[in-house]
Amino acid sequence: MYVVQVVGYKNSGKTTFITQWIEYLTGKGYQVATIKHHGHGGEPDQIKETDSYQHFAHGAKLATVEGDSQILITADKKKIPLKSLLLFYQSLNIDIVIIEGYKQIPLPKIVLLYNEEDTLLEKVENVQYVYKGNVEQFFHEVEANIHEFEYEKIKAFL
Amino acid sequence: MYVVQVVGYKNSGKTTFITQWIEYLTGKGYQVATIKHHGHGGEPDQIKETDSYQHFAHGAKLATVEGDSQILITADKKKIPLKSLLLFYQSLNIDIVIIEGYKQIPLPKIVLLYNEEDTLLEKVENVQYVYKGNVEQFFHEVEANIHEFEYEKIKAFL
Repeated sequence: MYVVQVVGYKNSGKTTFITQWIEYLTGKGYQVATIKHHGHGGEPDQIKETDSYQHFAHGAKLATVEGDSQILITADKKKIPLKSLLLFYQSLNIDIVIIEGYKQIPLPKIVLLYNEEDTLLEKVENVQYVYKGNVEQFFHEVEANIHEFEYEKIKAFL
Repeated sequence: MYVVQVVGYKNSGKTTFITQWIEYLTGKGYQVATIKHHGHGGEPDQIKETDSYQHFAHGAKLATVEGDSQILITADKKKIPLKSLLLFYQSLNIDIVIIEGYKQIPLPKIVLLYNEEDTLLEKVENVQYVYKGNVEQFFHEVEANIHEFEYEKIKAFL
């Protein structure tokens, strides 16, 4: 499993970049998964008038609801630190995990700059790539060097 | 870990029963988690205008968003069959899992009847208890016999 971190300030194009990248990787046959830090503080946006959310609100540490093809798990964050979540992904044979945000974590990362004055590069560690346009070529380049993001080699950073 | 299945037709009081039970067990110090089958067909109710849901919609098999104290995971159901989900719960040291629905699964179960004419008992296997009022006494009784629901003993049913 490979774990790639993507960081960038608001409006640097992270969501577009990541959704395009998921499509690119999925098209190549990779099993992709993502982990995103909720950018605006507070809790994930979700519908609270559900039985499942009521289970969680009344004390369940995890509450899963299963539909026809999707499942939704609401969980107490303290029960699933990032490392446990990655272990879970690994157990499900995910090939590539894209982590968005968590700027303070020193995993090998791709930086998206908002503009020339963007100072993000001075504030994060372990930058492998700075993305500057030509998305297809960039995806090829990262894919060719994906071994740099091998989870077994980088998990000590967590 | 113990796994208890609760089944009952619509309006038999499952949601009230389960939320009271979660509170009872949590109050006794157990780590509780739930798994519910979405009762009305279709997919779990969730907000789709989120970056995380977009990751999922563009092909990610799992998409997690982490907030201040809660995390929300949207997943492709084919990636996480019930057995894998229970394995995940077990790895997180959950004590008691309450499964709501999945009438066709022959796990040891509690049946909630809607009324005297309710025919559910004829349609499900492995009934351990039929709940008929006096909720506190019922919770005590199940707790005293919780070993009947030991996951290691019953997982062959899945």
